[in-house]
Amino acid sequence: MKFGGTSVADADKIRAAAKRAVRTQKQGHQVVMVVSAMGKTTDHLEDLASQVMRNKPAPKREWDQLMVTGEQVTISLMAMAIEEMGSAAISFTAGQIGMVTDDRHTKARIKTIAAGKIHKELDSGKIVIIAGFQGVTEEGHMTTLGRGGSNVTLVAIAAAINAEVCENYTDVDGVYTADPRVVPNARKINKISYDEMLELASLGVNVLHNRAVEFAKKYNVPIHVRNSAHSKKGTMIVAATESMERIVVSGAALKEELARVSLTKVPDRPGMVARVFHTMARHDVMVDDIIQTVNDDKTTASLSFTVDLAEFNDAKKVCDKLAKTLKCNVSYDDSLSKVSVVGVGMRVHTGVAEKMFSALADAKINIENITTSEIKISCMIDRSDGKKALRLVHDAFELGGKKKKKTKKVAKKKAKKTAKKKK
Amino acid sequence: MKFGGTSVADADKIRAAAKRAVRTQKQGHQVVMVVSAMGKTTDHLEDLASQVMRNKPAPKREWDQLMVTGEQVTISLMAMAIEEMGSAAISFTAGQIGMVTDDRHTKARIKTIAAGKIHKELDSGKIVIIAGFQGVTEEGHMTTLGRGGSNVTLVAIAAAINAEVCENYTDVDGVYTADPRVVPNARKINKISYDEMLELASLGVNVLHNRAVEFAKKYNVPIHVRNSAHSKKGTMIVAATESMERIVVSGAALKEELARVSLTKVPDRPGMVARVFHTMARHDVMVDDIIQTVNDDKTTASLSFTVDLAEFNDAKKVCDKLAKTLKCNVSYDDSLSKVSVVGVGMRVHTGVAEKMFSALADAKINIENITTSEIKISCMIDRSDGKKALRLVHDAFELGGKKKKKTKKVAKKKAKKTAKKKK
Repeated sequence: MKFGGTSVADADKIRAAAKRAVRTQKQGHQVVMVVSAMGKTTDHLEDLASQVMRNKPAPKREWDQLMVTGEQVTISLMAMAIEEMGSAAISFTAGQIGMVTDDRHTKARIKTIAAGKIHKELDSGKIVIIAGFQGVTEEGHMTTLGRGGSNVTLVAIAAAINAEVCENYTDVDGVYTADPRVVPNARKINKISYDEMLELASLGVNVLHNRAVEFAKKYNVPIHVRNSAHSKKGTMIVAATESMERIVVSGAALKEELARVSLTKVPDRPGMVARVFHTMARHDVMVDDIIQTVNDDKTTASLSFTVDLAEFNDAKKVCDKLAKTLKCNVSYDDSLSKVSVVGVGMRVHTGVAEKMFSALADAKINIENITTSEIKISCMIDRSDGKKALRLVHDAFELGGKKKKKTKKVAKKKAKKTAKKKK
Repeated sequence: MKFGGTSVADADKIRAAAKRAVRTQKQGHQVVMVVSAMGKTTDHLEDLASQVMRNKPAPKREWDQLMVTGEQVTISLMAMAIEEMGSAAISFTAGQIGMVTDDRHTKARIKTIAAGKIHKELDSGKIVIIAGFQGVTEEGHMTTLGRGGSNVTLVAIAAAINAEVCENYTDVDGVYTADPRVVPNARKINKISYDEMLELASLGVNVLHNRAVEFAKKYNVPIHVRNSAHSKKGTMIVAATESMERIVVSGAALKEELARVSLTKVPDRPGMVARVFHTMARHDVMVDDIIQTVNDDKTTASLSFTVDLAEFNDAKKVCDKLAKTLKCNVSYDDSLSKVSVVGVGMRVHTGVAEKMFSALADAKINIENITTSEIKISCMIDRSDGKKALRLVHDAFELGGKKKKKTKKVAKKKAKKTAKKKK
């Protein structure tokens, strides 16, 4: 079981998580918990560091040494809560459990886990609580695992002890066919494949970080994403099965804040594209999708790529210079969004792209760019059409649940609002 | 160098401590820092634990696992501050530095320290920062060293690396001939012996915990107690020398909040005294001084002992019962104080007791009990005479400095106040 920062934000929430673990143990399971730092703890530590460093970057070893205290506080409090409820528990830091990583501070990779120690404590009847997000090098230096690190810990521990299932407790009910805030009849997905989840995560579905899913896929660990506020089943993330492939599209996603950089009349020489992206990487600009076409004249090429709007200004600076150096044209569009559908069924079904394009065309939504993978189709569109496009695509593939009533209610409410406004 | 909680309470104070370490290193010294948790951190952690435990006592292993995070935050921030100033630093938890203790959680004793690791980092030019108050068992469980633990760490590290001196930075200028708040012409002592410091500490002089002084005495580590707010020399605590013995009395102390329990007509049988104090210990009542006399009838004895006023109610309950069981009389006095003088010179000088008693008698202060050690004389007196008695004794042994002017000023101020009141 893993509990994220919001699920252990205060003493009451820690006790609630402890209660769930105790109940699960009493049902005859052995329970290992992985916990994050409490709510705002990390912010507080970051604030202290920046006060001391006067906004210079902190030395990474000491940064990690500082950050790991957040999870250490939670593990000991969690063990206390369980003991207070009359069950036995023991908490472990990464160092104590032998969660050995390489020495890349702030983004370390797990090398080995001493599973024997966990089994020993489980067999003695204890609930074992492990600090997420952290590791320790062979020399004993503390490390952290980077973004999504606690989920990586969860999956790594589950793999190491050969767990039946790992439960990822969050503040959402699971993975949805689309963002329910935008698509009112979006449906919770009961089962989704690792590959679909990976695609959705890179499209901004913020349930599980890609590194954790990749890890789970590699070791075939099923992940149950569920809500810590109640006991309903959430979404199981598992290996793809044939029955899954019967469903053409599993989910749709909208990534709203995108910008596009278009370099045209780029001399079509070997190494030119590499040079462009090497420059972007050197300036720490993360590139999203890339589209390249060779022009009719066959001596120049066109190269487009998208970046998150937050990185657009950086990208613009770099590309203005780059265009001068390469003697090519550059243009920008900072008002784009990307609507996508994802499904392992695409591997065996045809006509998916056509259906998607028709749905958008029927609503007169212009498609700026198209990118595809084996199990994903994405269309770049104008941001003003984004939410509408997501609902259209979601309907076209009949992803909606039976929550028609709710949709009607929303429609009614809207009607009322409009009516009021008219008054 | 050791910096206590108030000396690292915020980012600015951490930077000030770091600056001092950097400056000392630049003067050609190798520097090891021992630091406590920042100001109110420990209170905050205790509060979290009691919320989770709903005021039941926390399991001690997890309590220690929680508490050690406080110092870990400070060490990493301190290392950052030093790096920010352009010097090299590395922080170590107890686990990382091999500060191995026994497994008595919340009051562990140090067994070994891996000094080699410290020397290695010092020789490479780094300032080494070590978390105070904490240890680790051979099995890797976190421990804490109990009250005064950070000072124990300081002295233990100093002994392990054979340090020239250990500097204990606090918020006072050093050890005084008496409490300057009570005795205006009290003088800072430049040099005091371990034994004198031990006596003063048990008399309530709250500069260094006895365990740290005992450790320092055992390994002959000189301790320099000084103020972190400026660079003036403080008090050196060292082994007694002949020159020290020329001074009859080094300091005077007043322990104000005391109560006395007197058991009279106690059957004078072997094991009776042991039984009394065994009962007190079993009820966690800390006994201060003990006075026993055999009565004239030689079949009964009188037994008095003092306790801190805070423990008086507990002591009373226990002794009321005890008196019934032993069939003896019991009486109480909860309005006592103890004035004492301390000095290694008493070993070789005579007339010390007489001078003290005369000073009190001349002022018509009644002495209730007398207890002595080789280097200490204590008199129990009525609490209302306490402060006056301390000043009288301090003057009788000419302990005062040349701050006569200040005394006058205070006197004048008092006169003014009285004058105002009269108006």
